[in-house]
This record gives sequence, C-alpha cells and structure tokens, in this order.
Amino acid sequence: MSDYPSVILEQAVNQMSSLPGVGKRTALRLVLHLLRQSDAEVEAFSGAFTRLKKGVVYCRECHNISDTEVCPICASTRRDHSTICVVENVQDVMSIENTGQYTGVYHVLGGIISPMEGIGPKDIEIDSLIERVAKGDVKEIILALPTTMEGDTTNFYIYRRIQNAGLAQMPKISQIARGVAVGNQLEYTDEITLGRSIVNRIEFKA
Amino acid sequence: MSDYPSVILEQAVNQMSSLPGVGKRTALRLVLHLLRQSDAEVEAFSGAFTRLKKGVVYCRECHNISDTEVCPICASTRRDHSTICVVENVQDVMSIENTGQYTGVYHVLGGIISPMEGIGPKDIEIDSLIERVAKGDVKEIILALPTTMEGDTTNFYIYRRIQNAGLAQMPKISQIARGVAVGNQLEYTDEITLGRSIVNRIEFKA
Repeated sequence: MSDYPSVILEQAVNQMSSLPGVGKRTALRLVLHLLRQSDAEVEAFSGAFTRLKKGVVYCRECHNISDTEVCPICASTRRDHSTICVVENVQDVMSIENTGQYTGVYHVLGGIISPMEGIGPKDIEIDSLIERVAKGDVKEIILALPTTMEGDTTNFYIYRRIQNAGLAQMPKISQIARGVAVGNQLEYTDEITLGRSIVNRIEFKA
Repeated sequence: MSDYPSVILEQAVNQMSSLPGVGKRTALRLVLHLLRQSDAEVEAFSGAFTRLKKGVVYCRECHNISDTEVCPICASTRRDHSTICVVENVQDVMSIENTGQYTGVYHVLGGIISPMEGIGPKDIEIDSLIERVAKGDVKEIILALPTTMEGDTTNFYIYRRIQNAGLAQMPKISQIARGVAVGNQLEYTDEITLGRSIVNRIEFKA
C-alpha cells in the first residue's frame, strides 16, 4: 500500500500500524472505521490512551497495573498475603483471577529472563520479589511462569536467589502443574508434555 | 476476560476493542503495548486520530478522502477527466492507483446499495455522480464495484439513473473484467467465475 490520498490519513495509518500485529492494510481499515465515527467517539477513543498513560500506576507491592498506589488485590484483607504467585505479566494475573481458584497475592515480573532478547534479571521485578520475601511472613511462592526455556530459566534463577537470600525460614517454592490439558486426548498431546505428566504423576484421589 | 486490575485500563481496552475485528484479548495486548511506550509516543498515537477527524475532508468532486477541498487526482491536469471510475471506497482508489494502469478520475460512493444492511441509493454518493455526468464532458464511466449481489445491484441502479438523466449524449458505461485471476489454475477457480469467463471471452491478441 502506498500513495495515500491524504497525509493526515497516512499519519493515522502509520500510528495504527505501529501496534504489534497490525499491518498497513488492517490499519487503514481501522482508521477509516474511526473516521466514520462521531467527533465525540474519536475523542473518547484517543483520550482513553493518553489518560491510561497518565493515570495508570504500578502497584507498589506486586507491580501489577493499578489505579491506586496499592492494587485492590494487595490491599484486600480477604487475600492470603503469605502466598505469592509469581507471573510474567498483567494478563496472567487476570487469567488466574478468572479461574477463581487462587486466594493469595501476586508478583508481576513484567517479563522473563531471555538472553536472546537481552532481558536479564535486572530488567524485571526480581529484586523487589526477594525484598518482599526477605521481610518474612511469606510461606509459599508459586512460580506460574510460561512453560518455556525462558520460563524454566527464570524459575531456576528465582529459586537460587531465594536460597541465597539468607532467610531465617525458607518459604515453600512450588510451580504450577504441567501436564495433559483438561479435556485433551493423549494422542494429541505433545510427547514432552505427556512424558512429564507420567514422570510427575500424582496420587489418584477417588 | 473480566476483572481488570484498573478502571482506566479497562476503559482503554473497551475503546480499543470498539475497532472492528479487535476482541477484548487482542485489545488488552495492544493497550499494554501502548503502556510500555513513552509519553510522547502515546501522545503521537492518540493525536493522529483526533487530527485525522478534525483535518481530513472529502474531495468536492470525487468524495475521496483528501487534505484539500479538491483531491490531488481531481486537481491534476495530467489525468483524463472524461473517464470516471466508480468505486465503493477509499481503499479501492488506492488499489487501482497501485496498478498504475488507470489515468482517469474516480467517484467514491462511500458504500454500495445493500437492502440487507439498510443502505439505499440516498445513503451513498450516487446523486453527486449523476450531477457530475449531467455537466457533460464525461465520455466513459467504469463501474468498479465488488463482484457481489450488492455490487451488481448498484451497477444496475447507476446504469438506469444515467439512462434516465436525459443526457444529450450518453457516456459509454463499462465494468471491470471478471474472470480467472492472473496466475490462477482453472481447476481452483470457482465455477461461476469460470463460467462467466467463457461467456464473456475476449478476442485473443498474439
């Protein structure tokens, strides 16, 4: 696509296509959609992102996105503050919250260690996690990072850092179960997952 | 997805997912991408759309998007103003311009007649097309609308309107060729297209 009939249109398309996974053709379609909306609607659209950038903060405790200095989860007295679930990003918190199965608090790393992408331990919220644990009162840390090489590396790094933190009492460190997804056929499960699910089998409860 | 950790985040996600084809999950990913950009970048992003809405006009002649009252194509003395190519939207103008095969001018309808979607002749730029033709000087009208039921209906409607416009001299009315796409195998071409390409065969030029 080239030769836009309008420079302002082209600039809007360029901005829209700066979003990840949005190509020029899709961007043009989205921008022309916006152009058909009312002035007020376009103002509301644009305003939402500048307000977001100005208004949103990261929770002082868990580094999740928040409207307040301490996020509602960290501020809640109904959550178990002695259990910290370590996740890569905001979406992961939302996914786990949606299960309704977790009552502890979180720690959002904001990324995982990836030498390939030049992301080291100092680029993500690991120091602040160790500080939280060092304060005591943490009984369990649940590592809920992606089941990838980078996730495994980050898990191992966090484990060693906690071991070497000189804590009076080591918290329990667990990781989310990896295995055959609920509802999946064995024959369609990849062999690494299936292999691990046999090695890491758990006691059957009837 | 529910339970956003921030109201401002939720509002931004709602705005992003108001774009056609953007679901809540994708919207969240895009919004979190924006949140990682600098203040200046987010300002540039938001600003592009409000500027677009305020700054862009529709060409007085052809109704294409333009920065000026008359678009560069309509203003050009190097274009053949006696040939008008009728298209559905802005993207179609860009697609035809990209072929480099057309030297006439355009008329952008801004939609096609679709009783299913409640779009009638009055909702699109047909009256202005008839006015342009009624001024005289138009030798040919090329109908380049989608090869769908709605496109065919609109083609036929425009043809009748021009016939009934009481013109001293009827312009030639043509439509873009429909047939087997260049590079396509016959066996993979749908039978309606293939059938028409036989009925509407053209003289072979060696």
